[in-house]
Amino acid sequence: MRAAESGDPIMGQLVRAYGPEAAVEIIRSGTCPEEFADRAVTADGREVAKDQLDRRIHSWRTRLTQADPEADLAFGDKAGARLIIPGDSEWPTQLDALGDTVPVGLWVLGSADLRFSCLRSVAVVGARAATAYGVHIAADFGAELSDAGWTVVSGGAYGIDGAAHRGALAGGTSTVAVLACGVDISYPTGHTNLFAAIREQGVLVSECPPGVHPTRGRFLIRNRLIAALSRGTVVIEAALRSGALNTVSHALSLGRHVAAVPGPVTSEVSTGCHRLIREGRAICVTRYEEVIELVGDLGEDLAPELRGPVVPLDSLSEESRRVLDAVPARTGKGPATIAVAAGVDLNTVLSCLGSLAAAGFVERTTAGWRIRRARASRPR
Amino acid sequence: MRAAESGDPIMGQLVRAYGPEAAVEIIRSGTCPEEFADRAVTADGREVAKDQLDRRIHSWRTRLTQADPEADLAFGDKAGARLIIPGDSEWPTQLDALGDTVPVGLWVLGSADLRFSCLRSVAVVGARAATAYGVHIAADFGAELSDAGWTVVSGGAYGIDGAAHRGALAGGTSTVAVLACGVDISYPTGHTNLFAAIREQGVLVSECPPGVHPTRGRFLIRNRLIAALSRGTVVIEAALRSGALNTVSHALSLGRHVAAVPGPVTSEVSTGCHRLIREGRAICVTRYEEVIELVGDLGEDLAPELRGPVVPLDSLSEESRRVLDAVPARTGKGPATIAVAAGVDLNTVLSCLGSLAAAGFVERTTAGWRIRRARASRPR
Repeated sequence: MRAAESGDPIMGQLVRAYGPEAAVEIIRSGTCPEEFADRAVTADGREVAKDQLDRRIHSWRTRLTQADPEADLAFGDKAGARLIIPGDSEWPTQLDALGDTVPVGLWVLGSADLRFSCLRSVAVVGARAATAYGVHIAADFGAELSDAGWTVVSGGAYGIDGAAHRGALAGGTSTVAVLACGVDISYPTGHTNLFAAIREQGVLVSECPPGVHPTRGRFLIRNRLIAALSRGTVVIEAALRSGALNTVSHALSLGRHVAAVPGPVTSEVSTGCHRLIREGRAICVTRYEEVIELVGDLGEDLAPELRGPVVPLDSLSEESRRVLDAVPARTGKGPATIAVAAGVDLNTVLSCLGSLAAAGFVERTTAGWRIRRARASRPR
Repeated sequence: MRAAESGDPIMGQLVRAYGPEAAVEIIRSGTCPEEFADRAVTADGREVAKDQLDRRIHSWRTRLTQADPEADLAFGDKAGARLIIPGDSEWPTQLDALGDTVPVGLWVLGSADLRFSCLRSVAVVGARAATAYGVHIAADFGAELSDAGWTVVSGGAYGIDGAAHRGALAGGTSTVAVLACGVDISYPTGHTNLFAAIREQGVLVSECPPGVHPTRGRFLIRNRLIAALSRGTVVIEAALRSGALNTVSHALSLGRHVAAVPGPVTSEVSTGCHRLIREGRAICVTRYEEVIELVGDLGEDLAPELRGPVVPLDSLSEESRRVLDAVPARTGKGPATIAVAAGVDLNTVLSCLGSLAAAGFVERTTAGWRIRRARASRPR
């Protein structure tokens, strides 16, 4: 964990090939086995030159000599954090999907069980510079998803992330904040109280050892964990160059669901969401039920259908509607006149007028039929 | 036009089978030819019983005896309206797509040529009870489409329709209002001035003869003309039961393009738009260029790609970015320390620091390398 930067695919390949302990020995020896050099590839599958590989192993060795694992464990212990590794009962197995970039281990701090929390989980991510609209939606989605038993995974940042975590804390379910720094560090500092609350009801997670500060690169690398820990990612407000879109790329490449919440087209921080929807990379969602329908179990977690108000007019036959259209509003008219206006024959008009009167749409006056004035009063 | 209600598919079949003049003779005779009775079908393709057909022809005959075509023509003439029929040079041939519900004729009032106006045209429709947001977008889209030489077709109603027409009038191009009443009637009356302006720069169109008032049924029937006259329909704000969605259904069944503008998910009048997008029935559009890309000519009317601001950081290699992340902000540090923090070897750090300094990201102090304070000043 100290030797390479998180998510280094070459380190991942070394650990997968030899196991973590032998990998450490190889790094200490400073020379890369020939057989490994032949098959090491970059994240995009290109071969790695032997001298490049040697340089990288050399730099890992330098970092390793300065690392103090015992001190890290003691420091983590003091902070109340626990270190989990693949195979542990708390290890979330969906991380295996990350392949070469599976973390070597994770530092976890909080009362909830990480693996259990992530069984039914949704990532809710978005802009730090969110609008009041976005914050409102994120808090609502967070609370509603949590109420429905879904864990909200996010990055603990200002804006959408923070609002989603806060909403989730208001519901009864765990929430997971994946940090780009040690779990003992409150970054941003304005979220110190939020992180304390997450430790109570959920968990803070990081692949950085305690005490490590965030860097720009670590935020991007961290995003793959947010995507991999959850069944799907929902973006609420993202500008065209938002980090949330980086999380979306990870989710898509992992084959996870992606949803985006639309907003006013005049809002810059909805541009990224609209583009994802336009390009078919994200499903348009407007309610938390639609999120659950997307990430939930087939046929079990369907969103209730939206319906407009049912207007009695809808229940009318086409002929009755045409007759109703032809009935005058004020001075009554006879059925024959109405029949001509409606373009139907007299018998049809008489039967339609009867049922329209019964339904309270029209009334008969001495002058003839007309639209009934007050729906509440009885026909005269 | 006076005998049947507009859009009656049986009348359409009669006129298609025998031509309009023979159709009038058949209606006057009151008996339906056997051969026609055998093949008359409803809008959804079901057979029509002979007695039902006779009743319908009988009601048409009654209306026909009360019609006064000469008076209609004289009245239209007085109002300045012209009657166009299929085959006329002003007839918009894209109406042929309507099949059995092609209008028998259209009343047109205004300075523009209907056929020419509709060659490059987009329907912009939506809620009458629009929000300030929707009205703003409709006016913007209307003006921008018009500026780009596209005719805006709409229904002349309050809300989105009116705003789209007004926007279009601000541009230089014709706009077409398809009415559910005679072209001489200002409905809604609050749009009297708007209709006057449309007559100046565009056209008012209706299949109702002058003097005919709107009914609920006529609005729905009218919607098929809005869809058929344009290459595509854009919905800006529509509740779940909006009439605009009826226009969309017509556009889809005619194989025309459909687009919808998203809005806040908290806005009831955006619900219909979001549902269309979610269900894949409409493309999500956020700018008028995207509308033109949809309805315009393949490869010619592409929307310019949206780009976020280009940050110089993006041009950095992965290694340079890691080195930059490892450079301290205040007290300078030596290349060896930075190499360990960045996880790269010393040679790489030295070359990266050189280019980072050249690009103005870092600076060298007596204590070592650090982040350059003011990007505007020269490195010390």
